[in-house]
Amino acid sequence: MSPAELDALCAKVRAFVEECAIPREDMSRGHDIEWLDDVTRELRTQARARGLVLPQLAPEHGGLGLNWVECVRVFGEAGRSFLGAGALGCAAPDQPNIDTLLRIASPAQRGRWLPPLLDGRVRSGFSMTEPAPGVGSDPRMIRTTARRVAGGWVLDGHKWFSSGAVGAAFTIVVARADEGVTWFLVEAGNPGFEVVRSVPSIDPFSHGGHGEVRLRDCFVADDALIGEPGKGLEYAQLRLEGARLFHCMRSTGLAARALEVAQGYVATRESFGARLAEHQQVQAMIADSHMDLYAARLMTTDVARRLDAGESIRHESSMAKVFVSEAVNRVADRAAQLTGALGMSGDAPIANIVLKLRPFRIYDGASEVHRAAIGKRIISRRVRP
Amino acid sequence: MSPAELDALCAKVRAFVEECAIPREDMSRGHDIEWLDDVTRELRTQARARGLVLPQLAPEHGGLGLNWVECVRVFGEAGRSFLGAGALGCAAPDQPNIDTLLRIASPAQRGRWLPPLLDGRVRSGFSMTEPAPGVGSDPRMIRTTARRVAGGWVLDGHKWFSSGAVGAAFTIVVARADEGVTWFLVEAGNPGFEVVRSVPSIDPFSHGGHGEVRLRDCFVADDALIGEPGKGLEYAQLRLEGARLFHCMRSTGLAARALEVAQGYVATRESFGARLAEHQQVQAMIADSHMDLYAARLMTTDVARRLDAGESIRHESSMAKVFVSEAVNRVADRAAQLTGALGMSGDAPIANIVLKLRPFRIYDGASEVHRAAIGKRIISRRVRP
Amino acid sequence: MSPAELDALCAKVRAFVEECAIPREDMSRGHDIEWLDDVTRELRTQARARGLVLPQLAPEHGGLGLNWVECVRVFGEAGRSFLGAGALGCAAPDQPNIDTLLRIASPAQRGRWLPPLLDGRVRSGFSMTEPAPGVGSDPRMIRTTARRVAGGWVLDGHKWFSSGAVGAAFTIVVARADEGVTWFLVEAGNPGFEVVRSVPSIDPFSHGGHGEVRLRDCFVADDALIGEPGKGLEYAQLRLEGARLFHCMRSTGLAARALEVAQGYVATRESFGARLAEHQQVQAMIADSHMDLYAARLMTTDVARRLDAGESIRHESSMAKVFVSEAVNRVADRAAQLTGALGMSGDAPIANIVLKLRPFRIYDGASEVHRAAIGKRIISRRVRP
Amino acid sequence: MSPAELDALCAKVRAFVEECAIPREDMSRGHDIEWLDDVTRELRTQARARGLVLPQLAPEHGGLGLNWVECVRVFGEAGRSFLGAGALGCAAPDQPNIDTLLRIASPAQRGRWLPPLLDGRVRSGFSMTEPAPGVGSDPRMIRTTARRVAGGWVLDGHKWFSSGAVGAAFTIVVARADEGVTWFLVEAGNPGFEVVRSVPSIDPFSHGGHGEVRLRDCFVADDALIGEPGKGLEYAQLRLEGARLFHCMRSTGLAARALEVAQGYVATRESFGARLAEHQQVQAMIADSHMDLYAARLMTTDVARRLDAGESIRHESSMAKVFVSEAVNRVADRAAQLTGALGMSGDAPIANIVLKLRPFRIYDGASEVHRAAIGKRIISRRVRP
Repeated sequence: MSPAELDALCAKVRAFVEECAIPREDMSRGHDIEWLDDVTRELRTQARARGLVLPQLAPEHGGLGLNWVECVRVFGEAGRSFLGAGALGCAAPDQPNIDTLLRIASPAQRGRWLPPLLDGRVRSGFSMTEPAPGVGSDPRMIRTTARRVAGGWVLDGHKWFSSGAVGAAFTIVVARADEGVTWFLVEAGNPGFEVVRSVPSIDPFSHGGHGEVRLRDCFVADDALIGEPGKGLEYAQLRLEGARLFHCMRSTGLAARALEVAQGYVATRESFGARLAEHQQVQAMIADSHMDLYAARLMTTDVARRLDAGESIRHESSMAKVFVSEAVNRVADRAAQLTGALGMSGDAPIANIVLKLRPFRIYDGASEVHRAAIGKRIISRRVRP
Repeated sequence: MSPAELDALCAKVRAFVEECAIPREDMSRGHDIEWLDDVTRELRTQARARGLVLPQLAPEHGGLGLNWVECVRVFGEAGRSFLGAGALGCAAPDQPNIDTLLRIASPAQRGRWLPPLLDGRVRSGFSMTEPAPGVGSDPRMIRTTARRVAGGWVLDGHKWFSSGAVGAAFTIVVARADEGVTWFLVEAGNPGFEVVRSVPSIDPFSHGGHGEVRLRDCFVADDALIGEPGKGLEYAQLRLEGARLFHCMRSTGLAARALEVAQGYVATRESFGARLAEHQQVQAMIADSHMDLYAARLMTTDVARRLDAGESIRHESSMAKVFVSEAVNRVADRAAQLTGALGMSGDAPIANIVLKLRPFRIYDGASEVHRAAIGKRIISRRVRP
Repeated sequence: MSPAELDALCAKVRAFVEECAIPREDMSRGHDIEWLDDVTRELRTQARARGLVLPQLAPEHGGLGLNWVECVRVFGEAGRSFLGAGALGCAAPDQPNIDTLLRIASPAQRGRWLPPLLDGRVRSGFSMTEPAPGVGSDPRMIRTTARRVAGGWVLDGHKWFSSGAVGAAFTIVVARADEGVTWFLVEAGNPGFEVVRSVPSIDPFSHGGHGEVRLRDCFVADDALIGEPGKGLEYAQLRLEGARLFHCMRSTGLAARALEVAQGYVATRESFGARLAEHQQVQAMIADSHMDLYAARLMTTDVARRLDAGESIRHESSMAKVFVSEAVNRVADRAAQLTGALGMSGDAPIANIVLKLRPFRIYDGASEVHRAAIGKRIISRRVRP
Repeated sequence: MSPAELDALCAKVRAFVEECAIPREDMSRGHDIEWLDDVTRELRTQARARGLVLPQLAPEHGGLGLNWVECVRVFGEAGRSFLGAGALGCAAPDQPNIDTLLRIASPAQRGRWLPPLLDGRVRSGFSMTEPAPGVGSDPRMIRTTARRVAGGWVLDGHKWFSSGAVGAAFTIVVARADEGVTWFLVEAGNPGFEVVRSVPSIDPFSHGGHGEVRLRDCFVADDALIGEPGKGLEYAQLRLEGARLFHCMRSTGLAARALEVAQGYVATRESFGARLAEHQQVQAMIADSHMDLYAARLMTTDVARRLDAGESIRHESSMAKVFVSEAVNRVADRAAQLTGALGMSGDAPIANIVLKLRPFRIYDGASEVHRAAIGKRIISRRVRP
């Protein structure tokens, strides 16, 4: 895609977000999963009509065929609205689940689930995290078990923060088999798979919420196995590398939105005899936020460029995850501070942006876990600074 | 009160919080104003039975007669629960409103409203902040007007973030009269005083919410005047100095609670082959949080000591407000980070503590406003470092 | 230059720095201007023999003809040693002075001074900053005057922090004429131009030190005028944009050197029963430093890319200056902390790197000045985040 | 001492510092150990004439008999000058060495060395730290050995950063004997004790510098033993607790001095059309620095109060060391930033204050070591937040 074509596409996504997505945001319904499904379906139709859906997928799957670097800008535009990524079909966890179907799943799994996912007719879930003492940031601590039985497997365990699990047509469940960590595709309606509730979490507008799931004697047939037994940790690593990068892109867009609102506010709001924008502390906060976003986008783009070039991104993607997740939180926090009471209220999107971005410092590996891993890798591989 | 007596009182408050208040917390009802009223009434009865109510008031008003320094520890214990301060009758905005009645109001106002407030039979509100372009951090920007008419005054204006206004028996309204900024006591039921809604705000468990209020031809009789006309800014300054300090005390307790939960979690939760508590980054986060609380309590206590000694606290109270509000937010943020997904969920109090504390960096004067004022004062009065 | 060619060039510069420059560093002589001149001359000869001098200049001037993006990596390698940039002829203030000669100076000035500067036979100075109440961060406050007289100008004023002025063959002096701020080339030996001393400054290894200069009835002939009268602020802006970017490149190299030393130290040094590298706080500090350098290099490279493309970089160069100067200081500070007493001593380069980098947050515009300017520009031009 | 008496004493110390100590500071001689000895001797005489010496000692030893809390303010005043603590006889390492003589040494050692130390006729050293792989922050890693021989001991090892060792009349040497870590008093002139050099270190104005010491077959007689064999770690812990606290007091004074200079500068220096003091970023930096000093003094005073009350301060002294050392560095860094080029030059004391305070984050236990220890203690002893 030429630079001009990419500019044009970004402008179209931006127009869609301004004209369609943002007007449909209802700050009072951030935790209403059904409402989010309904409005996402409507917006998906509108986005499809504008030729904007599935930017990250190849044209053969109905996508726009963008490479990673191109996605950075397009996801950034979509991410400005809580509803943008869902509208374009690039929200988590469907987006990484589609990726899993394309790369790891069997032809039968792909044939069954890819079309409705791509169409936005169904949603999917991903279930790995467990309450203590189960798996959190350390993927080796999975306690949910997968036991081979005649014709399939029986899963038992307790999950929570299962992304998208509420109302999902199927959920990818990560469990421990004799062969090691293994992935399974569990369909809704399986009597051994119970979505107990959506865990109340501070981040609004999460598709399918964060399900708490009980697996009790949950039988799945052989064809529910995803990929090979024992390769679950490897799959998780791969999934996370891409998913994190998309998360970086979207969250940068959302933080930029908060800053835009704040810039508009300080440009007109007066205090102590001057517009807020004339106060130096305000100028410095705006400057710092632009610097944060500048660095965050450059880092995200650099990792994307490496992916497009087929390079390993393990190290850089980890650094980008930490840097970007913390940078966007600083940006959103300053936006809230700049807008005062308005920034604390549901009348402006800023408070919801603060809430939406906060968990990014924890999900996909807490900053502390990444920092330790990055530091160890640098020392053991003698990575030159 | 002797140190031993104070220790004993603190232990009793702590026991009350652990046995009565914390068990009644319902994280799913943080924005349910009526529920909060109901549970607060019940807890007030229990606290009264234990001899713990109104610690900040003189015995003649049914209080415990604590001085400011003693309050630091007692409010800190009460503040550990979202429900503690309300149970003891020392939550905002009733607590500063009682102070206003005692210090500024007329005998008639005091006679009418003090008893039910002290008993916890009614709640009260405070209405100063206005949406842009009205008053925010700069108190001189009040746009709500008070016009003298025969037998009283007519108030007109638009307020929001009116603390406690939803369901209040009366609300103190700050308006601009010819004489300058003036305070009025407006009773519920006044046809010109409409509480439009509770502004949705990120902080849960706020007594009476944050009302949006329309004043339209709101007539109040002469006896609604509080204190003298034109002295409103002076009253606000006085009110805020005390209110801020109480806020510092309570919020330190709440942050300590988040840290307690986090300490319990890291002491048992394992990750990467060791208990979390054995990881150095975790140790450093715990250490930093204790240092933050150590400094926050010392600063709060120092301002309290100055108040007890009758000294001016304008400068120190402003520094304490900035330092403590930012310190408790750091503590809560680290607690959330330490507890991972749990810290983001409504199952632990930490997420709600994060939300409850965030606005403290804005309410009662944003950090930036205080920093500018502190810096100016230092230069103009040549305050020696 | 192809990527492979650039890699090869960087490897050669690195080898030169390791084999020639670093071994000649003498930490005890950081403020010995003559020693620095001597060793720089020797190293220049060695660098010339390896074909490494003047990387930023066109081949017609004896340079390597690198574009800005290529310079980022090459200057980064050279900057690892205190002596590297001088050896390659790309140290301040000669490098921006050469740029001035090429872009603004008259043919006569260029003919007279370019050859010896390029050869490293002479050094040059730049004299703008004045002690209070003269010009600091605000370029409009210049107090040194330039008065037209028959056949030339008379300069009067007091300067300090005149880069390179001690021992310079000529110094570019910025003064205020009737036409506005104007630049002059003042040769050594002019009786009205006295270099009083080298201002003792914390940064070691500064070519020609930071001269304090007295201009008393300093007559210069008409041909001493550089460019046009009254265009001095414009020239300064242009000069600074490029000079700052080169400064970013070199200082990133120096910070990386500090981190390398620290990485080597923690990989072997033991404490509390484990190598330092196994302590999580150490890992986190290493990780944060790599993230800082990652972002700093990306930002520097992005500004370089814009320069190569002929775009305006006023905004981005200002952001990069603030971000990079602060990032490299964080990196050096962590390196010092990681190496403990060694990091405070002159036996390791780290303490000197800390000292060398500290002023970068002030020179070329203090961070605070840039932040205010960046913030104002964003608001006034409605720069979208 | 009554509050009024303490005020009067502080005023006298302040006057002494302003009238005698500060005028004698010569920024160009920060690393000239002999000059510092000479000027200190002269100032000691003047201080003695004003009745200000040895504030921390009992009157029976010629001191002022201050308790710990009183010392906080007096040391703070003395610490404003690089020469103040030495003038009053309360600089390290003599001050903790005097403490060692009084508490642990034998009557003979005390009789021999206390009088000249108290009089300021001699200086003393303390030698514990070793170059890698010897003892740094982890006191158990001592490699210098003490071997029993007939009539005494033989010490062998390599030390550096031996405080005050250059020119000391005696040095306390910490070594490893069969019984464990043991302290010895080694007199100057012992042929096995060689002070190789003063390690060049960034902190100026250190009495007796930071000696590098070689112990080769260093025989000391039995009476050189300090206290009991094997109790060296316990002694070190005790020594450090007090020494650190005095360090906190003095360094707070020095940071306050930097801030005073900066406040004077911004009150008059103009930039961008206004005095620097009118710029909000400047106001915020001043405000933050006052908050840092406010908290630092409160914490130092609280630990002093606990010491006066005979309480254990292990936990609080560790927190204070980390907090204060980092706070004073922030204050000094902001002062440098506020004064621009002046803050980088030797013409103002600020640059030297920056250099003097930097190592405090490392000496007496690096921040990271303390953080880990504090965190571990909190978890293992379940310290309530």
